[in-house]
Amino acid sequence: MMVLITYDVSTKTASGQKRLRQVARLCENYGQRVQNSVFECLIDPQQFTELQFELQRTIDPATDSLRFYHLGAKWKGKVEHIGANQNYDPEGFIMI
Amino acid sequence: MMVLITYDVSTKTASGQKRLRQVARLCENYGQRVQNSVFECLIDPQQFTELQFELQRTIDPATDSLRFYHLGAKWKGKVEHIGANQNYDPEGFIMI
Repeated sequence: MMVLITYDVSTKTASGQKRLRQVARLCENYGQRVQNSVFECLIDPQQFTELQFELQRTIDPATDSLRFYHLGAKWKGKVEHIGANQNYDPEGFIMI
Repeated sequence: MMVLITYDVSTKTASGQKRLRQVARLCENYGQRVQNSVFECLIDPQQFTELQFELQRTIDPATDSLRFYHLGAKWKGKVEHIGANQNYDPEGFIMI
């Protein structure tokens, strides 16, 4: 299944900057970065549960946020890209 | 219809910082900011065409990107939020 993950992590403090790196690294383990704070993850339900758990315990819920969008199986027809890096395909490789 | 818009705008230059402000302002006219560079827009197809046109002519396609996710009518069940500002409802008001 395709899950889109977007996040905001407050980087006003050193610990916030560390959380931002940790969140990005976790998402990199499960999906493909498509923008700075946006990942598309082709994962199964168990992987999603693991990832969500890890992300949730990494952020500071007072200042940071995570959003998960379940795009379903027919996600390809739902996504449009304009601008830089538009040849990205989460089922293939990034064309640069 | 619900359209999720995410963007990356390079802010290395003064013109990039101006583009970032312009992109945010355009999105604010049509939807609700849910994260720093993420907007949810409940709009009709004509509004979407207008917004996409305005955004496309605002960005620098060499350095910036826009992504549009068409979440359909049953979008509410597809979105999960964890952390700050989680009482946001795009059909209502942000609860702070």
